[in-house]
Amino acid sequence: MRLTVYLAGQIHDNWREEIKEKAKKLDLPLDFVGPQENHELSDQIGEQILGKQPSAYYRDDAASDINNFRTEVLMKKADIVIALFGESYKQWNTAMDTTTAITLQKPTIIIRPESLIHPLKELSNKANVTVETLDQALNVIQYIYK
Amino acid sequence: MRLTVYLAGQIHDNWREEIKEKAKKLDLPLDFVGPQENHELSDQIGEQILGKQPSAYYRDDAASDINNFRTEVLMKKADIVIALFGESYKQWNTAMDTTTAITLQKPTIIIRPESLIHPLKELSNKANVTVETLDQALNVIQYIYK
Amino acid sequence: MRLTVYLAGQIHDNWREEIKEKAKKLDLPLDFVGPQENHELSDQIGEQILGKQPSAYYRDDAASDINNFRTEVLMKKADIVIALFGESYKQWNTAMDTTTAITLQKPTIIIRPESLIHPLKELSNKANVTVETLDQALNVIQYIYK
Amino acid sequence: MRLTVYLAGQIHDNWREEIKEKAKKLDLPLDFVGPQENHELSDQIGEQILGKQPSAYYRDDAASDINNFRTEVLMKKADIVIALFGESYKQWNTAMDTTTAITLQKPTIIIRPESLIHPLKELSNKANVTVETLDQALNVIQYIYK
Amino acid sequence: MRLTVYLAGQIHDNWREEIKEKAKKLDLPLDFVGPQENHELSDQIGEQILGKQPSAYYRDDAASDINNFRTEVLMKKADIVIALFGESYKQWNTAMDTTTAITLQKPTIIIRPESLIHPLKELSNKANVTVETLDQALNVIQYIYK
Amino acid sequence: MRLTVYLAGQIHDNWREEIKEKAKKLDLPLDFVGPQENHELSDQIGEQILGKQPSAYYRDDAASDINNFRTEVLMKKADIVIALFGESYKQWNTAMDTTTAITLQKPTIIIRPESLIHPLKELSNKANVTVETLDQALNVIQYIYK
Amino acid sequence: MRLTVYLAGQIHDNWREEIKEKAKKLDLPLDFVGPQENHELSDQIGEQILGKQPSAYYRDDAASDINNFRTEVLMKKADIVIALFGESYKQWNTAMDTTTAITLQKPTIIIRPESLIHPLKELSNKANVTVETLDQALNVIQYIYK
Amino acid sequence: MRLTVYLAGQIHDNWREEIKEKAKKLDLPLDFVGPQENHELSDQIGEQILGKQPSAYYRDDAASDINNFRTEVLMKKADIVIALFGESYKQWNTAMDTTTAITLQKPTIIIRPESLIHPLKELSNKANVTVETLDQALNVIQYIYK
Repeated sequence: MRLTVYLAGQIHDNWREEIKEKAKKLDLPLDFVGPQENHELSDQIGEQILGKQPSAYYRDDAASDINNFRTEVLMKKADIVIALFGESYKQWNTAMDTTTAITLQKPTIIIRPESLIHPLKELSNKANVTVETLDQALNVIQYIYK
Repeated sequence: MRLTVYLAGQIHDNWREEIKEKAKKLDLPLDFVGPQENHELSDQIGEQILGKQPSAYYRDDAASDINNFRTEVLMKKADIVIALFGESYKQWNTAMDTTTAITLQKPTIIIRPESLIHPLKELSNKANVTVETLDQALNVIQYIYK
Repeated sequence: MRLTVYLAGQIHDNWREEIKEKAKKLDLPLDFVGPQENHELSDQIGEQILGKQPSAYYRDDAASDINNFRTEVLMKKADIVIALFGESYKQWNTAMDTTTAITLQKPTIIIRPESLIHPLKELSNKANVTVETLDQALNVIQYIYK
Repeated sequence: MRLTVYLAGQIHDNWREEIKEKAKKLDLPLDFVGPQENHELSDQIGEQILGKQPSAYYRDDAASDINNFRTEVLMKKADIVIALFGESYKQWNTAMDTTTAITLQKPTIIIRPESLIHPLKELSNKANVTVETLDQALNVIQYIYK
Repeated sequence: MRLTVYLAGQIHDNWREEIKEKAKKLDLPLDFVGPQENHELSDQIGEQILGKQPSAYYRDDAASDINNFRTEVLMKKADIVIALFGESYKQWNTAMDTTTAITLQKPTIIIRPESLIHPLKELSNKANVTVETLDQALNVIQYIYK
Repeated sequence: MRLTVYLAGQIHDNWREEIKEKAKKLDLPLDFVGPQENHELSDQIGEQILGKQPSAYYRDDAASDINNFRTEVLMKKADIVIALFGESYKQWNTAMDTTTAITLQKPTIIIRPESLIHPLKELSNKANVTVETLDQALNVIQYIYK
Repeated sequence: MRLTVYLAGQIHDNWREEIKEKAKKLDLPLDFVGPQENHELSDQIGEQILGKQPSAYYRDDAASDINNFRTEVLMKKADIVIALFGESYKQWNTAMDTTTAITLQKPTIIIRPESLIHPLKELSNKANVTVETLDQALNVIQYIYK
Repeated sequence: MRLTVYLAGQIHDNWREEIKEKAKKLDLPLDFVGPQENHELSDQIGEQILGKQPSAYYRDDAASDINNFRTEVLMKKADIVIALFGESYKQWNTAMDTTTAITLQKPTIIIRPESLIHPLKELSNKANVTVETLDQALNVIQYIYK
C-alpha cells in the first residue's frame, strides 16, 4: 500500500531531500509532495504570472494566491502530513498547513526541536504525534507497515 | 501525478481546444472534462431524450435536467476547476459552476478579460486565482509540478 | 416558527422594501437579511476601511473582501434564500449567492422575468422553486404556514 | 441580530478590553469570547487540575489539553473570528486558531501590523479580510449592520 | 427541553391530530411540524402559485417543487422524525422523507401495521425504532424525559 | 473514463441484464453494481448466515441487516444511480435507495412508467432526471461521453 | 453562556447526582443530560413498549433500539461530553458514547481511575482531557468561565 | 471489485491469520489491514521511537499517539470494518474502532460470542450485522459478490 506524504514546513534548507533519501533507504513505499521549495520562486510567482504589482503588499498577495492554490491541490492527495518547525523564522505557513491538515482529519506528525516545546504546545497537542528528528517521523510511518 | 481539470465556461468558441493544445505543448499530465460543447445539442438534449415538450420553457427545463446531471458526474472527478468568462452572454452557468466548485472546496482558477473586473469582483475574490489568459491559467497549474 | 430569509439579488431598485411590506401585510413571521443595498457604499467599503488602493482593480478587490465577509455571516443565519434576477446587469453576485445557497442545501426560490428563462435554465433547475413575481415567492413561503 | 465574536491572538496585552470598549461605543450587539487571557494561569492550568507533572514538557502538554478543550467549546459558539497578530512571540496559537476558523468556514478577520505582511501573506490570503487596527476590524463588522 | 417532531406519512386521515392530542395528555414538551395535510391543496399548489400548466405531468411537477421546498425547510428544524405507513397507497413520499431523515442522521421512528413488516424490512432496519401504534411512538419519546 | 452505476429497483424481472446488454451495444465504459437479484436468496440470507430465527419478523430483520450492508458497500462505489420503479409491488427499497443516493448527492436517474407520474412526483422532482425507458436512461449517460 | 453537558458512563451508582450537586455549588451555568439511569428500565424498555420478545437476545435488541434513539437525541444537544469509566463492568456503552462524541468533534472529558490507565490509553489519547475525579472534570469546565 | 477490510479487535490470538486463510479459500478479492498485532511492540512503540518516558502513564500515552496514528491512516483506506470481541480483556480499543467506523459510516460487522450479547447490545444494534464466527463474517462479505 503506497501512501502519499505532504511535507509541510520551512523551505530554507534541504530537509525534504534528506527525508526522501532516508525513506528510500528504509524501502518505504511513499510518494512525497509539498510546497514550492524554491523560496525566491515562491515569492515571485505572483508577479511572474500576473505581471508587475503596485507594491510589495500586492506582490505578496498575488504570490500567495498561487501558493495557496498549489497547497490545496496537493494536500488533498496526501494520506499523511509531516510538518517540520525549525528555530528560525515565523513559520506561519507551517502552522497553517499543519492546522489545515488536522482540521481536515489528515493523520499528522510534527517535527520540532526541544527549544520549541513551549510555543508549539497547543498545536503539538492536536497533532497525532510530535517528534524531534526526521528519523523518528519515518519510524512512525514505518510502524504502519510492520 | 495526473490531475483532472474541469473547464467551466462559455461553449461558443473553441477555447477548450486551445487550452488542451497548450497543455500538451507544456507536457502537463492533465485530463480535461467539461460541459457539453455542442451548444445546439445542449439545448436540444431534453427533447431528444424525453420527447417533444409543450413549450420553450419546458424544453429548456428538460435540457437542463440532463446538462446538470452531466456536470455533477464530471465535476466530482475534477481536482481543479478552470472557469472562463468572456465578454458576451449572461454566462450564469459559468458563475454557477465556479461557485459550486468553490463551495465544494475544489481549487479554482478564473480567466476573465480586464473589462469584467468590476462585475466579477466578489466571485473572483472567492476563487483561488484570477488571470486574464489561457497561458496564465496553465502557468498556475504548471507551478504545481515545479 | 420565525424564519430568516436572505434576499439575494440586484441592489439597484427597492424590491427588498416591497417584499418586506408584502410579508408584513401577509402577517408572515419572517426576518429578512441580505447584501449591502447601498450600491455606492458597497463599492467604496474597501477603501473606506482599508484606505486608498493603487487602482480600480485593487479597490474592487478590497471591497469584495468585505462584501463577501458580510454575506457569509448573514447567509449562515438564513433558513431560506430568495434570489431575484432582473433584466439588466451581469448579476453574477446573484448567481454566486444562489449557487452557494443551493450547494449548502438551503431551500432556495428564484424570481426572474420570463425573458430570462433560457439563460437561467440550469440554475433555475437546481433551485427548489422558480417564480416570476415577489407575490409568488411569498406565497411559496406562506404555504409553509398553511 | 446579536453575533458572537471569538478573539484569537496574543494574551500579553489588553487589546481584548480595548476592542470590547470600542464595540460598546459603536453600540454593536456583539458577545465576545476567547482564549484564557491570564497567561500564567493558561500555563499552569494543567498542573493545577491534574497535579504535578514530571517535567516542563509534560506540564506544557497537560496545560494544552485543557486550553484546547476551552477553545473548541468557545469557537463552536462563534459567528465570527477576529485574530490579532503582534510583533513579538511566535504566536502559533493565533495561527492555529485562525486556520481552524477558516477551515471550519467561520468568517474571519486578521489584524496585523504592516511589518508582518510578508510572513503572514498566505494565511492573510485565506482569511476574509485583513486589517491593521482594532477600529478597522470593528468597522468591518459594523458594515454587517448598515 | 422542548423537541420538534416532524410527522412524515400519509395525509389521508387525521393521525396527526390524534398524536398531538395524545402528546398533550402525556404532557410532552413537543412541537409538531409536517407536510401539507390538505391533500387537494398539496396537489394544486403548483398551479395555484405558478399558474395553469400544460398537462397533469407538469401540474404535478410544479406542485412537487413547492411541496419539497416546504419539507426541506421544516425537516431541518426537526429533532426527531416519526413516519407513519398505512396499508393503502404507494406512500413513496413517506419512504422518501424517512430515508432523508435517516441519511441526515435525524433520530427516526417508523409506525407501520404488522402487514407491512416484509415490504418495509430494509427501511425499518435502518430506522432507530419501529412500532405499530401512535402510543408506542410517543412512549419512545416519553422515555427521553424519564 | 469508466463510471460505476448502481442499479436500484425491483428484482423481479431481468431489467438489469437488459440494461447491461444495451450498454455494451452502445460501447459505454460502465461497471454495474446493485442489490441482490436472487429474490429468494435476499429473503433467506439472514437465516442462511445467522441461523433459524423465531418468526417471520425476525427472519426479515436478519435478512435486512445483510441486504443493507451489501447496499452500503456498493452504493459508496457508485458514480451514478439508476432507479427503476415498476407497476407492481410497494418498491420501498427502490424509494429508499433512490433517496439515499440523492441525499448523498449522487447523480440519479429514475425510470418509471407514465402511470406512476403522480405518486412519484416529489421523489422524481428531487432526482436529476426522470425517464420512462432503459434506453432513455442510457442515453442520458451516453451524453456524458459526447 | 449556558452549556449542555452529556454525562456518559456507568449507570450503577449515583455519580451523576454528585456531579450535578458539585456544579451547583460552583455556580456553573450547566444543563445536564445523559442515558437512562434506571438500569432495570433501560433493560426492559424494549419489551415494555414493543411487547414480549422471543428470547433474551431479542429483548436486548429491542431495548437497545430505544436506548440508542434516546442517546442520539440528547447527545446532539450537548456542547460537552463527560464520560466516566469505573472499575467494574465491560462499559462498552461508555466507550461507544465517548468515541461517538469524539468522532462528531464534541469536546470530551474522560474520568477514570488510575487502574484503567493502560486499557483506556488509546481512547484517553483521543479525548481532549482525561482526569481521575468529578471535581477535576468540573474544574476543566469551570476554566471556560474564568 | 477488490475491497479493503479493516480487522479491528483483540491482538492476543491469531484470528486475523485465520480469517485471511478462510478468505483465500473462498477466493474473495479482499485486502486486509488492521492494528499492530505484536502486542509487546504496540505497548513499547512510544518509548522505542520517542525515548524513555518518566513513568508507565507517559509510556502508555506515547504509545497510544502512534497506535492511533496508525489506525487513522489505515481505517481511512477501509471499505468494510470487521470487529471481533472475545471474552477476555476490556477491549476498549475494539469498541473505539467499531464506533469510529460506524460514526464515519463505514459498513461494519461485529463478531462476538453469545456470552457478550447483553453487554454489547447497544453497539451491536448500531453495527450493520452481528455474527458469532469468522465464517459468518466472511459469508456476509461473500454475499456482496453473489
